Amino acid sequence: MPKPMPERQWDTRRAEKRRRQALGARIATGKVIPTADIVPFLETITAPGDRVVLEGNNQKQADFLSRALADADPARVHDLHMIIPSVSRVEHLDLFERGIARKLDFAYAGTQSVRISQFLEDGQLEVGAIHTYIELYARLYVDLTPQIVLVAGYKADRDGNLYTGASTEDTPALVEAAAFRDGIVIAQVNEIVDDATDLPRVDIPGSWIDYVVQSDKPFFCEPLFTRDPRLIKPVHILMAMMAIRGIYERHQVQSLNHGIGFNTAAIELILPTYGESLGLRGKICKYWTLNPHPTLIPAIESGWVESVHSFGSELGMEDYVAARPDIFFTGADGAMRSNRAFCQLAGQYAVDLFIGSTLQIDGDGHSSTVTRGRLSGFGGAPNMGHNPGGRRHATPAWLDLIETDDPLARGRKLVVQMVETFQAGGKPTFVESMDAVQVARDSGMPLAPVMIYGDDVTHVLTEEGIAYLYKARSLEERRAMIAAVASVTPIGMRHDPATTRRMRSDGLIALPEDLGVHRADATRSLLAAKSMADLVEWSGGLYAPPARFRSW
Amino acid sequence: MPKPMPERQWDTRRAEKRRRQALGARIATGKVIPTADIVPFLETITAPGDRVVLEGNNQKQADFLSRALADADPARVHDLHMIIPSVSRVEHLDLFERGIARKLDFAYAGTQSVRISQFLEDGQLEVGAIHTYIELYARLYVDLTPQIVLVAGYKADRDGNLYTGASTEDTPALVEAAAFRDGIVIAQVNEIVDDATDLPRVDIPGSWIDYVVQSDKPFFCEPLFTRDPRLIKPVHILMAMMAIRGIYERHQVQSLNHGIGFNTAAIELILPTYGESLGLRGKICKYWTLNPHPTLIPAIESGWVESVHSFGSELGMEDYVAARPDIFFTGADGAMRSNRAFCQLAGQYAVDLFIGSTLQIDGDGHSSTVTRGRLSGFGGAPNMGHNPGGRRHATPAWLDLIETDDPLARGRKLVVQMVETFQAGGKPTFVESMDAVQVARDSGMPLAPVMIYGDDVTHVLTEEGIAYLYKARSLEERRAMIAAVASVTPIGMRHDPATTRRMRSDGLIALPEDLGVHRADATRSLLAAKSMADLVEWSGGLYAPPARFRSW
Repeated sequence: MPKPMPERQWDTRRAEKRRRQALGARIATGKVIPTADIVPFLETITAPGDRVVLEGNNQKQADFLSRALADADPARVHDLHMIIPSVSRVEHLDLFERGIARKLDFAYAGTQSVRISQFLEDGQLEVGAIHTYIELYARLYVDLTPQIVLVAGYKADRDGNLYTGASTEDTPALVEAAAFRDGIVIAQVNEIVDDATDLPRVDIPGSWIDYVVQSDKPFFCEPLFTRDPRLIKPVHILMAMMAIRGIYERHQVQSLNHGIGFNTAAIELILPTYGESLGLRGKICKYWTLNPHPTLIPAIESGWVESVHSFGSELGMEDYVAARPDIFFTGADGAMRSNRAFCQLAGQYAVDLFIGSTLQIDGDGHSSTVTRGRLSGFGGAPNMGHNPGGRRHATPAWLDLIETDDPLARGRKLVVQMVETFQAGGKPTFVESMDAVQVARDSGMPLAPVMIYGDDVTHVLTEEGIAYLYKARSLEERRAMIAAVASVTPIGMRHDPATTRRMRSDGLIALPEDLGVHRADATRSLLAAKSMADLVEWSGGLYAPPARFRSW
Repeated sequence: MPKPMPERQWDTRRAEKRRRQALGARIATGKVIPTADIVPFLETITAPGDRVVLEGNNQKQADFLSRALADADPARVHDLHMIIPSVSRVEHLDLFERGIARKLDFAYAGTQSVRISQFLEDGQLEVGAIHTYIELYARLYVDLTPQIVLVAGYKADRDGNLYTGASTEDTPALVEAAAFRDGIVIAQVNEIVDDATDLPRVDIPGSWIDYVVQSDKPFFCEPLFTRDPRLIKPVHILMAMMAIRGIYERHQVQSLNHGIGFNTAAIELILPTYGESLGLRGKICKYWTLNPHPTLIPAIESGWVESVHSFGSELGMEDYVAARPDIFFTGADGAMRSNRAFCQLAGQYAVDLFIGSTLQIDGDGHSSTVTRGRLSGFGGAPNMGHNPGGRRHATPAWLDLIETDDPLARGRKLVVQMVETFQAGGKPTFVESMDAVQVARDSGMPLAPVMIYGDDVTHVLTEEGIAYLYKARSLEERRAMIAAVASVTPIGMRHDPATTRRMRSDGLIALPEDLGVHRADATRSLLAAKSMADLVEWSGGLYAPPARFRSW
């Protein structure tokens, strides 16, 4: 029997944590860090080369902590490996500019996507990989276990018990990876209370949190999922009608995820009008995985919606959500509990349909939101926008996509790309080659940043019609079907009218008239709410839109 | 603008919970239910037709609560819809025999698989669906939100703060679905303490748990992942050598999941001998997602393992795990924190390789453990044993499976089926048609219960050799490759020696000699531990095998 390694120490992580905590005790009182001392505290508690998870979520930002970390002395804190789900703040990249951080693993970059590209080009930043959210959380338990986790919540007590409020989002998945592997967890909160009985509820137990600090101002949170109905155009409504008739009704879609956008907002807003006229209430769109979209209020009030589980919160929806506990997941305190990890899981494995939009689609149906000079990342779409091979339960919609009589045939998740054939500014959505391919070449990425792969897409819906890609018997046929709904884009120009006629009669593609959708009916009069004020009225005054959305 | 539905009540779930809790208050004192009153309490707090989650996990069982529920009066409690991840106890099915429950959604049934089949045939039970674990959790947040959740932990305080100990397993995923949608959560614990300071740590906050009850005896927990090295045969060692040379080394597999079985136990036990002789330490098998297998101890002690994240615990491994916090995920109290939801996520999205065994494989590579008369379900294999289409990060192993120069090509997860060509008793593993196909027909299931689909399998490894299925350019070629390693089974008899020679020289299949593996070297002398006593010795006496595994 071979001998074990001699004299190995098996608690180096724990010993290192204790060493740092002993230094931190000069600044913190118990678990509480004085607000004014956060920069020296972070300089004390971190070490060069640490893997640091920074809670930049889709909405909620641990911005007090990110600003403090960016203010640290690069002579003391440097070469950090940052793990940030959503890179959304200027200081996230200041960390790299100042030499405090060197490597970045992330899932999404909105406003910072141009700067990431530049930094990458200038060699100021090294990208580990760009992930879909849930894949990034998963790696925290395998090869990216963090030394430091920085998160945000509403309130905490002096023992570290954390109340996240409605914006729980990524926090539990991020914290657990450190709390149970001798990492150090620091939570910024808007308010510190004396003990747990002063908290509305506990979202994360105190024994998982090492330090709390009251932030200089409440954490930043962005209303990303609010769409003003005023900006919905007739073309959105036409496409929404096609979605309801040609996809939701046809396949009996009962559980679904809607992405952000005016297209899907239009679907939400015509359920109580157009959907009702088709007698579909109670038959489709019952179970939802999405943030509390204000444009979903009329459908909820009209009795369409059984339940909504959410990735994160939406500013202004707090009182409405709290008053609708039959629909939303809420705690005993009344506030919502969101959970991005579980909602991504639900959006992957438990819903019939994912529908989303994109910036570019190529002739094979691959799509990406990455354009030259912008490394925007993936967010949640790759996870929800693929056919999960591990799924084993059947639903009517899932089974409806089986096209063979093979006894081993499986159903499929519906993955719908809903796009206008041209983007604002006249840029074609359907392109010969996605910018993503060139971006990958330019930046030496091991693979092109494709958001959703063509073989995962089951339907392409444009203002021209629907291509039922899951019926394609070959790549050639898939290409022809895409071309048939791509209007006069470079891809659309390839289409052959005779082929299109045949595919139409074979049911491979459908134009609005094939679905009984009349273009003339696609007017804004179908919208259950035509303005933010209408949404407020539908909500009985419970919805309180952020100031920038108020025009009355 | 259409009118909202008139006079709708939006908190029916909450009101119903309060109504039941008011009745329950006649029995419980605060959150504490007297042990002797559990049956009348369950009769009071549940209602006919409820969806009830019962924590039957792979190892841990809320068996006090399941026994109590099975003792309820069917006149009061009936037609329940049970959601049980792992149906493992006699009383799980007694519920159906007694008319207390009617419908079952589950993921796995070990010892109860025969009885489920019989009940289904007799119309005593209706199966909703058979799931992979994580898919079942996901549905709790969409269309299977429970009214009642029954779970097990080690200790709780009177406020409901729950210490699960090392067997956290499914508990957090099950509890959250009810705690935040006005369901009722009841935890059985081995001990109730006065307050949170008496708990080693808090795994679930008290505000998520409505009731605690001290069980009549400690919860049942089974050591499912312990394999006695004495039972490892030379053929397992031969296959283990092939796995290390022909798969792990070739593709640089750094992160992985091992299923249960003597095949994978053999791999674990020859890493410190055979693997060491190949100079592979530090190069392969660094990050693991698996339960704390005792057979992994020698590899850990020899410095092969960087980290282990676990689905659940393993009886007897408690002290060893607690003494190795650099390797295992442990809490501040020293005990392991397992988490099946996150570990399944990690096993899906964050590891290079899944390797498992099965009972039947057909000519196309589809496999199943369902045999006639046994509805055994899926457990976690479908989730980990498929190529996750949402993955976007690259690793050397994942990229190594790309076979084209298409700039949009993706890597693949390695999904390895490691089987002897014949099972014990001389039954062929490779069969013309899996029993699962007939079972589906007989029981009217919408699809055959296939564990892993052929198009997800990248490698088939038998005592004959390795078929590199990911290299197959057609279904025909995949079939020929499988036949070539299927010896004299019905599928193996199809193989054509000339084709096999060609495939061998093309690298599509490899025999042991092609990998530099000498059959004569495949002896038990390669095992770093040959007995349970050896494992105990490797662990420095920290591993304490359950009595049934002790022969000294």
